[in-house]
Amino acid sequence: MAKSLPVSPLAPTSLAELPAIKGVRLATAATEVKYKGRDDLLLCLLDRGSTIAGVVTRSKTRSAPVELCVANLAKGKVRALVVNASNSNAFTGKAGLRTVDATVKHTCTVVGCEPHEVYVASTGVIGQPLDPAPITTRLKALSEAASDTGWMPAARAIMTTDTFPKVSTATAKLGGETVTINGFAKGSGMIAPDMATTLGFVFTDAALPRGLLQKLLSDATDRSFNSITVDGDTSTSDTLLLCATGKAGGAPAGTRSIEDKALKSFRAALDNVLQDLAHQIVRDGEGATKFVSVTVTGAENSIAARRIGLAIANSPLVKTAIAGEDANWGRIVMAVGKSGEKADRDKLKISIGGMLVATKGAVNAGYDEAKLMPHMKGQNIDISVDVGVGKGKSTVWTCDLTHGYIDINGSYRS
Amino acid sequence: MAKSLPVSPLAPTSLAELPAIKGVRLATAATEVKYKGRDDLLLCLLDRGSTIAGVVTRSKTRSAPVELCVANLAKGKVRALVVNASNSNAFTGKAGLRTVDATVKHTCTVVGCEPHEVYVASTGVIGQPLDPAPITTRLKALSEAASDTGWMPAARAIMTTDTFPKVSTATAKLGGETVTINGFAKGSGMIAPDMATTLGFVFTDAALPRGLLQKLLSDATDRSFNSITVDGDTSTSDTLLLCATGKAGGAPAGTRSIEDKALKSFRAALDNVLQDLAHQIVRDGEGATKFVSVTVTGAENSIAARRIGLAIANSPLVKTAIAGEDANWGRIVMAVGKSGEKADRDKLKISIGGMLVATKGAVNAGYDEAKLMPHMKGQNIDISVDVGVGKGKSTVWTCDLTHGYIDINGSYRS
Repeated sequence: MAKSLPVSPLAPTSLAELPAIKGVRLATAATEVKYKGRDDLLLCLLDRGSTIAGVVTRSKTRSAPVELCVANLAKGKVRALVVNASNSNAFTGKAGLRTVDATVKHTCTVVGCEPHEVYVASTGVIGQPLDPAPITTRLKALSEAASDTGWMPAARAIMTTDTFPKVSTATAKLGGETVTINGFAKGSGMIAPDMATTLGFVFTDAALPRGLLQKLLSDATDRSFNSITVDGDTSTSDTLLLCATGKAGGAPAGTRSIEDKALKSFRAALDNVLQDLAHQIVRDGEGATKFVSVTVTGAENSIAARRIGLAIANSPLVKTAIAGEDANWGRIVMAVGKSGEKADRDKLKISIGGMLVATKGAVNAGYDEAKLMPHMKGQNIDISVDVGVGKGKSTVWTCDLTHGYIDINGSYRS
Repeated sequence: MAKSLPVSPLAPTSLAELPAIKGVRLATAATEVKYKGRDDLLLCLLDRGSTIAGVVTRSKTRSAPVELCVANLAKGKVRALVVNASNSNAFTGKAGLRTVDATVKHTCTVVGCEPHEVYVASTGVIGQPLDPAPITTRLKALSEAASDTGWMPAARAIMTTDTFPKVSTATAKLGGETVTINGFAKGSGMIAPDMATTLGFVFTDAALPRGLLQKLLSDATDRSFNSITVDGDTSTSDTLLLCATGKAGGAPAGTRSIEDKALKSFRAALDNVLQDLAHQIVRDGEGATKFVSVTVTGAENSIAARRIGLAIANSPLVKTAIAGEDANWGRIVMAVGKSGEKADRDKLKISIGGMLVATKGAVNAGYDEAKLMPHMKGQNIDISVDVGVGKGKSTVWTCDLTHGYIDINGSYRS
C-alpha cells in the first residue's frame, strides 16, 4: 500500500497561501506507523477563549474519535486538535476508546487544558488497533514547535490517498474589522454527503459564540461538503470542525440569526472557503478526469433538488458516460426517475454545457450532439436539469467514474 | 455500438430447456432497426382466459410501455405480449404514447382481442423516438409463426447488453396436478431493486385468479428481483409479468392468502424460477467477475436487513475490493454505517466465506487474512453480517465492480 499516486489532472494549478491567524499555531510530525518519510500527525493549538463548532458523519458505525468530538462539541470550547492520518481508529472496540482517552490525557498535560477542550480526528484504515504511543510521545515536541506559519505542512500531514493538499483562505468584514478564514481538508474517495468531508479543519480569528458558529457551519456545510459526492460511500470518521479564536471582529452582541446583515460578509467568505475545499476534494476524486456540476431547478424544494442532483451525481451509468465523453442524457433521465423525488416527466428539461438537449419530456428538436462534443471533451462538465414541479434548486458536484477508481480501490487497502 | 461482448465468466455452464406450456405460443423476428442479423422483436400469445400480474419500475420517469402495463394490469387479463429490444421508447413524449397505441391497435386486429389484453415492453436506448412500423408490420407473420417451442429464441430476442440468454423452469403440485412455470429475462446493468428486472416474463399453466397471482408475484419479487443489484441504477422500463393460462391445476376456490398450504409447492417453484433468473442477471452484470451473496441477520426487521444488505452490495468501495480479491472488511463496516438502519457497532459480527472476521465491534482475535485468500480468489463470495439489534434477515446478491463495467458503460450508448 501507500504507493504514490500521480497528481489528479483536475488539481488546482496553484495552492493558496494561508496567512497567520491570531491564536492558532500548528505543528506536524512523522509517526512512521504507516508512512515512511512523511508527516502524518498534526497538533493545532488554539488560544484560551476559542470556540468550536462541528459537523460529523451520520454513519451508524462512527469511530471512537468522532464520538469524542460529538461529546465535546456540546461544550463548544477548544484548545487543541490532534489529527493522525495513519489509522482511522474506527471499529476498534474498547481499545479504540482507550487510544482516544490516552491521546486526550497527554494533550491536556502538554497544553494545560481540560479534556473537553481537546478534539481528536483519525483517518486511514478501518478496524486495526491504533497504538497511542507513537502519537502521545510526540505531543510535547509538537507543542513546542507549533507556529502560526504551519498551514501547508498541516494540510499535507492529514492526507491519505489525496494526490494534493487542499487549502483555502478568505477574508470578510465583521464588526467593523477584517477577519480571516483559513481551511484545509483531506479526502479523495468515500466522499458523500450527509456527512462532512473525510476531514476538514477551518479556523477564523472572528469572535463568534459557539451557538452562532454552529449555525453558520451547518448552513454552509449544506452548500459545500454535503453537496459533493465521489462514490456515494460514507466514511465512519468524517469530521468538519470550525474554530474561532475571537482575536478580531465579532458579530454585534445579541446576534442570533445567521440571516442577520452583520454576518453577510462572513457567511459569504465561509461559503467560499468551504466550497473551495469541497470542490478540491471532488477534483481529487479517485481516478477523476472530469469535474461535474449538476444544477437542479424546478424541484419541490431545495432538499428535493439536492436529492435529485445527488441521484444524478452518484449514478455509475451517468459517471461512466461522462468518463467516456458521451452526452448520454437518457441516463440523466433515468437518474432523475430513480431519485424518488417529484418530477414531471413531460416538463423535464435538460441542458449540458448550456445547450438545451431535452425539453417537454422529449429530445429538443434542434439538438445536435456533435455540437456538444467540445464540451464533453473538456475537463468541466455542466449539467442542468429542470424537473418542472416547483421552485427548489440546488447544485451538487461530482467527478466521473473511470478505470483509475477501480485501480485505486481494487488493489489498495485504504 | 452493439459491439459483441464476450460471454460473462459467471454464465451458467448449461441453459435450462423450457417445456411447452399449454396456452402459450411465442415467435420472434428481426426489425433491423438497431441490430443486424438478430431477432429483437417478440410476440407471446396467450389463450383466452389467461390472467396476468405484474411488477414495474418505481421510476418517476417511467416509459410509455410501462404506463400501458400499469393501466392494463388493473383488469388482469392477457392475450398478447409484444416486446422489442431496439429502443426503450422512454422519455419520448407524446410520440412514445402514439407508438404504444399503434402497437396495441395492430395487435388487437391480428390476435382478435381487446386493448386491455395487450402488454407492451420495450428496452434499449432512452429518448429516441420509436417508429411503430417495423413492429406493427411484423405482427401478423409473428402470430402465424407462434409456437409452443419458441422459448429460447424469445429469451434471445429480448437481450440488449446481455451476454447470455436467461431462462428457468420448474414444476409444482397445485390442485392435485403438476403445473409448470417457465421464465425468461434480460438485464445486465441498470439493475437495482425497488423495481423488477430490466424485463422478465414468467408463464404458468396453473389456474390462478389475478388477485392471488399478483400477491404471489409481489411476494416472490421481494426475494428475487428486488434483492439484486448490479450498479444501483434504476431503469425507466423495468417490467416483470407473470401470466397464468389456467390449463392445469389451480388453487382451491376461495384461496385468498398466499400463506395457504395449497400454494406451498407453487410458491417454492415460483421462488426458484425468479431467484434463478435474478441470479443470472447478476451473473451477467456488466464486467462482473465475482458473484456476491450478502446475508444480513440481526436487523430490526427484514426490510432493514435488506437495506443494509443493499448498502453493502451497492458500495463501490466494497465492490472494487472484491474485484481486487481484497478481504477489506472495514469497507463492509462503513457500508453498514451508511445504510441509515439501526446497527449495534459493538455487537457487529462479520463473516466472509464462513470465516469469522470481526466480532463484538472489533477484529476477531483469531482472524488470519491469509486463510481467507482462497475464498477471495474464487468466483462466489459470501458475506454475512449480523448487526446485533433484532431478528430481521435478508439475502441480496450482487457482483463486483471492475474495469469491464467502465469499458462497457464508458463507451457504449445503451
